[in-house]
Amino acid sequence: MTEAVTINPTELIAEMGRRARAAATVLALAPTATKAAALRAAAQAMRAEEATILAANGEDMARGAVNGLSGAMLDRLKLTPERIEAIAAGLEAVAGLTDPVGQEIDRAARPNGLLLTRVRVPLGVVGIIYESRPNVTADAGGLAMMAGNAAILRGGSEARGSNHAIHAALQQGLAVAGLPEDAIQLVPVSDRAAVGAMLTAAGLIDIIIPRGGKSLVARVQAEAKVPVLAHLDGIVHLYIDKAADPEMARTIALNAKMRRTGICGATETLLIDRAFADPAPILSTIADSGCELRGTDEIRAIEPRAVAATAEDWDTEYLDAILSATLVDGVDGAMAHIAAHGSHHTDAIVTDDAVTAERFLNEVDSAIVAWNASTQFADGGEFGLGAEIGIATGRLHARGPVALEGLTTYKWLVRGSGQTRA
Amino acid sequence: MTEAVTINPTELIAEMGRRARAAATVLALAPTATKAAALRAAAQAMRAEEATILAANGEDMARGAVNGLSGAMLDRLKLTPERIEAIAAGLEAVAGLTDPVGQEIDRAARPNGLLLTRVRVPLGVVGIIYESRPNVTADAGGLAMMAGNAAILRGGSEARGSNHAIHAALQQGLAVAGLPEDAIQLVPVSDRAAVGAMLTAAGLIDIIIPRGGKSLVARVQAEAKVPVLAHLDGIVHLYIDKAADPEMARTIALNAKMRRTGICGATETLLIDRAFADPAPILSTIADSGCELRGTDEIRAIEPRAVAATAEDWDTEYLDAILSATLVDGVDGAMAHIAAHGSHHTDAIVTDDAVTAERFLNEVDSAIVAWNASTQFADGGEFGLGAEIGIATGRLHARGPVALEGLTTYKWLVRGSGQTRA
Repeated sequence: MTEAVTINPTELIAEMGRRARAAATVLALAPTATKAAALRAAAQAMRAEEATILAANGEDMARGAVNGLSGAMLDRLKLTPERIEAIAAGLEAVAGLTDPVGQEIDRAARPNGLLLTRVRVPLGVVGIIYESRPNVTADAGGLAMMAGNAAILRGGSEARGSNHAIHAALQQGLAVAGLPEDAIQLVPVSDRAAVGAMLTAAGLIDIIIPRGGKSLVARVQAEAKVPVLAHLDGIVHLYIDKAADPEMARTIALNAKMRRTGICGATETLLIDRAFADPAPILSTIADSGCELRGTDEIRAIEPRAVAATAEDWDTEYLDAILSATLVDGVDGAMAHIAAHGSHHTDAIVTDDAVTAERFLNEVDSAIVAWNASTQFADGGEFGLGAEIGIATGRLHARGPVALEGLTTYKWLVRGSGQTRA
Repeated sequence: MTEAVTINPTELIAEMGRRARAAATVLALAPTATKAAALRAAAQAMRAEEATILAANGEDMARGAVNGLSGAMLDRLKLTPERIEAIAAGLEAVAGLTDPVGQEIDRAARPNGLLLTRVRVPLGVVGIIYESRPNVTADAGGLAMMAGNAAILRGGSEARGSNHAIHAALQQGLAVAGLPEDAIQLVPVSDRAAVGAMLTAAGLIDIIIPRGGKSLVARVQAEAKVPVLAHLDGIVHLYIDKAADPEMARTIALNAKMRRTGICGATETLLIDRAFADPAPILSTIADSGCELRGTDEIRAIEPRAVAATAEDWDTEYLDAILSATLVDGVDGAMAHIAAHGSHHTDAIVTDDAVTAERFLNEVDSAIVAWNASTQFADGGEFGLGAEIGIATGRLHARGPVALEGLTTYKWLVRGSGQTRA
């Protein structure tokens, strides 16, 4: 690995991009069974190489401890036999997903006899930039490949040994299935210049997907000349309407905030209709759960454990056991708050009034809008997509959970019998 | 108009963008009938204001003549009663198209009882940058609005009076239908700085669509921080396979090249299978039509009127009565040539061999791939999309002819009955 850092990152990414494009040409035409076989063989190789992967991960962990990584970062970095098995099982699950490539989106016979079909084809070359979790190497690489793409993976330097060992298993799987090993490449240098080279590799990389914290995503969005699928913030709202079932509202609020506080679908702001009869049990349940409440004066009058919210709270994604809360004037007040402070990720309403619910579903401009369900369902697996490579809050190409279909594009096929245009 | 040039372009576009976003919020929820009524009223206003539009166009034409515009540019700029009627009829045709907004893309009931639907919603704010054709003001503005978007239009300075008059008719239509006039805005300054401000207005403009020549598209693609839907080149190939019907091949070749030479779907390079029995009638038909042939030595041996092609010819979009031609070794040779020189726009094969045709359709990586049909069908109207705002050769979001559906995105709706995530 050490000699790799002497390579010019721009030349390195250009060369990897050319090899990826060549591999993508093969992958685009690979049968579903061949791609699935590669993933299953990679899962077997992961299991067979468990000791090697654990040893490499142990070196990463030791170096991380010396370098003063936080406990949370070390936990994200750490592999165990159980985590390796979960990664292998994840590859097998992706192998069982429906292959979008070749699917017909629509079909039309024109009056002149031309038959038009629109069919899904792979995007091409997918760049994935991630941080300390080594499982992303397999999860993202496998998903991109199953959709017929070549992947260029750039993981965090703290996980380089683990990523290299997992990547070796993926390449074994590709080789077993007779697919080009260049279909999943791992950037061998981990300095930040390699990221910059990927972000400006227009024409070589078709799309960049960042997986990691806000500073990584912000850098990618600011610098990229290549299209990016991502979400910067998940400022997720739960609105309790006056017509909400009180017990449903209490249960959903607790789950939406506290089931897991560190995921992007976790609720960050609770909006309660000023006309809702009984907000106290909801707020006390939240406070009882160990969550810090930050509220307006009205909220603090109902739940004394709440501290005063500042203006900044309404625009903050805590990713922690903290919830901001305010009363609003009905669904219009809730939607105005969401329009002013939301991040177009996921927002939910609890109400028994179907008319109000449909207004909220229709008018809230977010990738995911939910009615009488926890915001924590914002997840490709929960949506039945099998796995997700990320959640996108932009408006182009794919929105919400991005899985196999989001990693494809389409082309138009025209079948004629000699037609010329008049 | 003259005072407008003193405005700071960045501030101007920011203010227009804010007004467009507010209008887009209204447009996104506007019923189909209301949007259609606005277009029909705009068409009536165009007819009622014909004299005003012609007078403004006359001033543009006079100034253009003084400024030395070419005959071709003056022809693109010129309006006549017939052209105004065609623009009005075009608006009425768009009013009759199927509205994509609210369409359900898919639906799934999850095992936990959640009902998931994915529905089309407008993209938001569409920026359109174009050159001398004033009809684009109505065509593009109307199409963007019918898909529920706000549009910011920046036309060429040579057409500013014509654009202003047509834009006034569009705003009359919006007002008649009770829609915000900010839904279709025309940039009042026509210096190049306004284009730069639009290209960097990330967050204010969701997508930029350039309509014009290659230098405009190249500038937009190079400078844009906003996503762009466009095609830079239309290096379109027609491949005559050894199993082609000779008469069909001759007819399609003539139409694909010569029906109209200036459109992006016009064939620029003819590839003939070395095993095809009789290329001479095809080449002589092309030469007889007044088209310049540029060929390899083999081509020139068959058709003596052909001049020698240079390496540059294979990478040139002529948009003129010029055709480059070469023999290739079967469908593999044709596909290798297209992979090396194509622009992912439109490529076609003529053959009676269905197996060869399906290989070509499957393996050629272009937005449109055709079998036994002229490449000149590469057009949203011919595809039954009603109208197109452009043809895209990128891989993200929309590919090929972009019409109403390509001007939308989607969101996920989750309907539950109190579900929480385990």
